[in-house]
Amino acid sequence: MTSSDKPGNAADAPAESTGATGVAALDWATAAADPQYRAAVVDLLGALAYGELAAFERLAEDAKLAPTLEDKAELAKMASAEFHHFERLRNRLAEIGEEPTGAMEPFVAAYEGFHKQTAPSDWLEGLVKAYVGDSIASDFYREVAARLDSDTRSLVLAVLDDTGHASFAVEKVRAAIDAEPRVGGRLALWARRLMGEALSQSQRVVADRDALSTMLVGGVADGFDLAEVGRMFSRITEAHTKRMAALGLAA
Amino acid sequence: MTSSDKPGNAADAPAESTGATGVAALDWATAAADPQYRAAVVDLLGALAYGELAAFERLAEDAKLAPTLEDKAELAKMASAEFHHFERLRNRLAEIGEEPTGAMEPFVAAYEGFHKQTAPSDWLEGLVKAYVGDSIASDFYREVAARLDSDTRSLVLAVLDDTGHASFAVEKVRAAIDAEPRVGGRLALWARRLMGEALSQSQRVVADRDALSTMLVGGVADGFDLAEVGRMFSRITEAHTKRMAALGLAA
Repeated sequence: MTSSDKPGNAADAPAESTGATGVAALDWATAAADPQYRAAVVDLLGALAYGELAAFERLAEDAKLAPTLEDKAELAKMASAEFHHFERLRNRLAEIGEEPTGAMEPFVAAYEGFHKQTAPSDWLEGLVKAYVGDSIASDFYREVAARLDSDTRSLVLAVLDDTGHASFAVEKVRAAIDAEPRVGGRLALWARRLMGEALSQSQRVVADRDALSTMLVGGVADGFDLAEVGRMFSRITEAHTKRMAALGLAA
Repeated sequence: MTSSDKPGNAADAPAESTGATGVAALDWATAAADPQYRAAVVDLLGALAYGELAAFERLAEDAKLAPTLEDKAELAKMASAEFHHFERLRNRLAEIGEEPTGAMEPFVAAYEGFHKQTAPSDWLEGLVKAYVGDSIASDFYREVAARLDSDTRSLVLAVLDDTGHASFAVEKVRAAIDAEPRVGGRLALWARRLMGEALSQSQRVVADRDALSTMLVGGVADGFDLAEVGRMFSRITEAHTKRMAALGLAA
């Protein structure tokens, strides 16, 4: 997310154009009476929870590449913030009577696949990855927030809370490109690879998890629409392209 | 530390027999008027801060070896707790007008040396290392707490706060030894190696950092006494040996 996007505004922006369903007007207890909706939310919380735990691990790993102790501390701080997001999502799963591990496990392979294919080879690649990953996650949360019952929406928007990736990463990457413009070309390729891999893993999840995918594209009642999933991915990709351009990376 | 040792008790126990100096009765503002005392505390806070940051990194790394998602989350939680300790120590350095990085840097080599020599090869070795490291650190904090001014002492005792290593590690290691007694012999050797490496790196620090070492062995006024350093290491080693025996590992 960009540093000017405050969580408070997030609920207003998304999905007006994508056809939010009536579920947004319900609380969890009412909405969850529909077993398909309930299954979709459990999937969503499981996917987000494991995503945060995986982000914790990768940021902690990237902290090792930090050129200075301050940079290391900064990445450790982000990792710790992701861990606290994980805790909230896990606790919510437990609260609604779901076994958190069971809810997370369907998504382990996709995240591990993504991270395995995109291990940064240096500090700057790690920063670009943290920024791109955080931004895509944030876009996705916003897309989905409008389709959620009020209780789940509050949690998702709280977890969307800026972990500080954006401004820190943007500042460091810009400085590196200024110092050596050639770096920009390499990082632009890297950002494209990150996006490609993220899309490929997401599509795998969409194909595997019917209830989740159906909810993502306009609510359970409307049924599953593959074209709408495609449009959501397009919107996220466009936002990514704009961010990369702003960062000085032609995407 | 064992799970029954609560931070509240820690201030009573230590160092009665090792000759605490009058500094314990002073607050920071008064005690820091002595430049040698001030230098020793800056060293101490720097060493503890980098130790916490390094512990964060290693626990996050060990989380990858976790056999289950619950275990992974448990280690991530410990890592996050260490990060918050790091933040408190770093903020305190800034508060007393010291540049945190400058205070930490003299201790980077010793910690990196320790962790490089003791990379766990599996989950159980990682747990034993977390337990042994946490226990030694806790013993050391107690030894030193009685020699500190009241403000620094409060901080050190707060950071001593149990991160949950002990009970989690003890339970998992005991279960593994019960399931396969041979594991005990391997882990006993491992624990001995950890202690040897910790002592070797500590002695390096003691030799390098005069003000810190002098404070550790009885206060600046008494001067530096190598025999007393030896006795402190002996007490810590004895406590380690007892803990390992309790864990079912002959040390």
